[in-house]
Amino acid sequence: MNRIEVQTSPDRYRHWRIETDGEIAALIMDVDPAGGLSSDYELKLNSYDLAVDIELNDAIQRLRFEHPEVRAVVVKSGKENVFCAGANIRMLGKATHGHKVNFCKFTNETRLAIEDASEHSKQIYLSAVSGTAAGGGYELALATDWIMLVDDRRSAVSLPETPLLAVLPGTGGITRVTDKRKVRRDLADMFCATEEGQRGKKAVDWRLIDESVVKSKWEEAVKARAKSIAAGSDRPTDAKGIVFTTITREITDKAINYSTVRVEIERERGIATIIVGGPGEPPPLSIEEVQTQADRFWPLTLARELEDAVLQLRFNEPTVGLILFRTEGDASMVLEYDSFLAAHQNHWLMREVRHYIKRTLKRIDVTAKSLIALVEPGSCFAGTLAELLFASDRALMLIGRREGDNRPPAAIVLGEANFGLYPMGNGLTRLETRFLGEPESVGRAKEKIGAPLEGEEAAALGLITVAYENFDWDDELRVMIEERVSFSPDALTGLEANVRFAGPETMETKIFGRLTAWQNWIFQRPNSVGEQGALKLYGSGVQPTFDRERV
Amino acid sequence: MNRIEVQTSPDRYRHWRIETDGEIAALIMDVDPAGGLSSDYELKLNSYDLAVDIELNDAIQRLRFEHPEVRAVVVKSGKENVFCAGANIRMLGKATHGHKVNFCKFTNETRLAIEDASEHSKQIYLSAVSGTAAGGGYELALATDWIMLVDDRRSAVSLPETPLLAVLPGTGGITRVTDKRKVRRDLADMFCATEEGQRGKKAVDWRLIDESVVKSKWEEAVKARAKSIAAGSDRPTDAKGIVFTTITREITDKAINYSTVRVEIERERGIATIIVGGPGEPPPLSIEEVQTQADRFWPLTLARELEDAVLQLRFNEPTVGLILFRTEGDASMVLEYDSFLAAHQNHWLMREVRHYIKRTLKRIDVTAKSLIALVEPGSCFAGTLAELLFASDRALMLIGRREGDNRPPAAIVLGEANFGLYPMGNGLTRLETRFLGEPESVGRAKEKIGAPLEGEEAAALGLITVAYENFDWDDELRVMIEERVSFSPDALTGLEANVRFAGPETMETKIFGRLTAWQNWIFQRPNSVGEQGALKLYGSGVQPTFDRERV
Repeated sequence: MNRIEVQTSPDRYRHWRIETDGEIAALIMDVDPAGGLSSDYELKLNSYDLAVDIELNDAIQRLRFEHPEVRAVVVKSGKENVFCAGANIRMLGKATHGHKVNFCKFTNETRLAIEDASEHSKQIYLSAVSGTAAGGGYELALATDWIMLVDDRRSAVSLPETPLLAVLPGTGGITRVTDKRKVRRDLADMFCATEEGQRGKKAVDWRLIDESVVKSKWEEAVKARAKSIAAGSDRPTDAKGIVFTTITREITDKAINYSTVRVEIERERGIATIIVGGPGEPPPLSIEEVQTQADRFWPLTLARELEDAVLQLRFNEPTVGLILFRTEGDASMVLEYDSFLAAHQNHWLMREVRHYIKRTLKRIDVTAKSLIALVEPGSCFAGTLAELLFASDRALMLIGRREGDNRPPAAIVLGEANFGLYPMGNGLTRLETRFLGEPESVGRAKEKIGAPLEGEEAAALGLITVAYENFDWDDELRVMIEERVSFSPDALTGLEANVRFAGPETMETKIFGRLTAWQNWIFQRPNSVGEQGALKLYGSGVQPTFDRERV
Repeated sequence: MNRIEVQTSPDRYRHWRIETDGEIAALIMDVDPAGGLSSDYELKLNSYDLAVDIELNDAIQRLRFEHPEVRAVVVKSGKENVFCAGANIRMLGKATHGHKVNFCKFTNETRLAIEDASEHSKQIYLSAVSGTAAGGGYELALATDWIMLVDDRRSAVSLPETPLLAVLPGTGGITRVTDKRKVRRDLADMFCATEEGQRGKKAVDWRLIDESVVKSKWEEAVKARAKSIAAGSDRPTDAKGIVFTTITREITDKAINYSTVRVEIERERGIATIIVGGPGEPPPLSIEEVQTQADRFWPLTLARELEDAVLQLRFNEPTVGLILFRTEGDASMVLEYDSFLAAHQNHWLMREVRHYIKRTLKRIDVTAKSLIALVEPGSCFAGTLAELLFASDRALMLIGRREGDNRPPAAIVLGEANFGLYPMGNGLTRLETRFLGEPESVGRAKEKIGAPLEGEEAAALGLITVAYENFDWDDELRVMIEERVSFSPDALTGLEANVRFAGPETMETKIFGRLTAWQNWIFQRPNSVGEQGALKLYGSGVQPTFDRERV
């Protein structure tokens, strides 16, 4: 498969349209059947592949930043009789296991971005379902805060994955049915076993949708509902959005260079290094200046470039199993940006920037690659950038100076940003998760806000995994890396998925933990992916043959 | 493989010894290498297979009932230099996928039974680890409330599954490290990547063990610790235990008949029916009389027989994908037993009975087979037995009478037992889980305690899935069953594992959800189970060859 590119812009969309009308936007799905990632399949009936979801992800991000005036987003279909038929089956049938898993992870992140926009940006999504919303189509609607279904005796919502395809509604479907909409478990069971799904009053009674509307009143009801939902938003009425320009980067065989992020790829060793550069200049003096900088405002540039870098590694570097995080720059300047964000935390644009950084860090949390942070002289793991340490599976720190290097010893600097700005999917901060067994350590760390913490002190505070003297550093690091990349990639994925999320579970962690893990298992089982499996044979007219053994 | 038998008794144990000394018991693991389920492998170094765990499960149950005086249980090894080497690798390497999954589920239930005994029966477990506790060996220790490790510069605890075998410490290992012992995530990562594990002060500092004791003080320290732990127990000092006799049952090709439970197996259709009989006589008048009845006391008989029936179907009927639950008997008499249990709820024996029923119901919750309850005239889904309805994926109820059947219409009767006695793994009652989206329905149901609820009323209260008139019953049931057994067994397993556990997550649900699902996935991946995989090649001297792609 060609290199997968997650950057796009509305003028290049083939599958979605954004139509804004004051405080209401319509996000219209109108998939071009020939516009998939591969020509092996046609995206009929508003079915989707990764290409479609990449545009959706872009649209959600842009709506937040480019349209401060939009308070409600109506997701609807541009086609007659079908809202969305879900993930394209032929694509799933032909995709490698790795691509299926990566595709599902990204689509899950996109649906969570919809919920994040509704909850945190008060740009609230609703679905106007006219026609069938099947499988991933209904899962898309489930990610919105309000689901309307036209009552035309034909339109319906359904999760037919189990009966038709021998897989799960794995893009959050089951979890949102049971935990978000709190559908009674036996009704959820009935619903997930019924190909044709549910509609009308019964769909409302079962809590599957919020509203069933007769066809004659449909347009009017959708408008009214969007208006009433918009009334619950706190978004500004007179603000001006900022436009996302194309991310500038240079991609070579061994590197990806952005303005503030560099990725160095050592494919043979299975390693990539992500080097994050601190800001090149102090923060602007005013919000107005940020509006002028637009997406060149360093924290926003960071969020966009780091996100792109992580997705590049996920989609295009499958044999890279280990990411090393390094930083370079001036810690105090990083903290100045944090202070600027804090000083303007109630400004809509700063709110968006913060949540974008949060989502990027969450993408790192669920990335199926080992993460090791390296804290060396010249680094700037401070405030927001220190979150990279706490997102990593291990953090190594150099004690003292390197020979011939006059820079001061490496130091971590904590900031307010580490104590609440960027919660993980489990609802806790990374430090709270880290110190689940010794909550007093969070307090001890908080007392050190602003102080440069060198290796031994950082280790004593539990902020890093281990600190090494210069004469040990190279050997220790080499051994650790060699060992890590020698382990089974699958065992590491499972280990990390469990170790990273101690403590409480949320709908989000249940989706990436429980639901995704079961789906990945099913994606390995012959009953779905074997030559006689349901996913392979769907649409061929041949019935699948199942091994009847229950596991 | 031969029929797997979960019934045993101490006089038949080959792998464990129970030695009681007043309030302290020692549970000594001393595995007979030749005593495994199969002669394909030798159980060296106190490694275990299902045969070993079946004895452990029996020992835990018996200690609770037969030894009310035992307040602390010290788990230790009967061998020199090794505490327990974990699950036998050759066994895992040769086992079918289904057997691996079933084995792990049972061992997980056994470890949870240890925690249940410590927490709810105040028969508190501690581990005296002398020698290595590797993998499943450390996981066994993790299930106890206190872990002591001898400091002889050799004994250690370790979870080497990922480096050595390319699998996870899946018997609760990772989850207990992160969520029970709350080991810091980067230390957990280091620990799970280090073959030789950890020992001494560092093991204490990392929260992996509670106490490191020098060899010269070992015996004395273990005794003292057991004594101090026993002091925290509320178990009676002068009570007399009751002895578990062998469960009486008749096994034929198509049925298993117990005294209060019958199992009818239709292997070709993939169905088994479990018919639970209500009590044959009213409850005893006093606790003394229960002591005389011993394990013939109906609720205890029920717990034991129902548990055995479920395990029989899990281990010996892999192609049975659907269990139908039926009951027969007098609802009022079931409720009389519930009242008896409630009246004596603080008596140690009644406490044990209640928790045994709770654990049996939990085994049903995690059974990978579809569950449909059928409520018909003559049934007694009342109180404790009504939990079977709420544990099922669907409950169907017949409205009115059957032609030629003079018995009154089917009715459900709720009791206090349905409102707190038997929490699920998620910490909620089955009715709370069921009504997560409409908590007021729990209150509405509670108002109906004691009232016979016929089909339409039960449906209106949301207690059943659907009620059918007699003339529809047979067809509806036939269609539902045919449809259910036509679906992919794997997709149903995944669907049910997600739909059954809405709401909060606990360590227990994380073990059966997140951890187990990832392990099952890994158990399908060539890097562990392929011909070149680590699980297959372990001990052969040949290094595994891994597909380096990260998924």
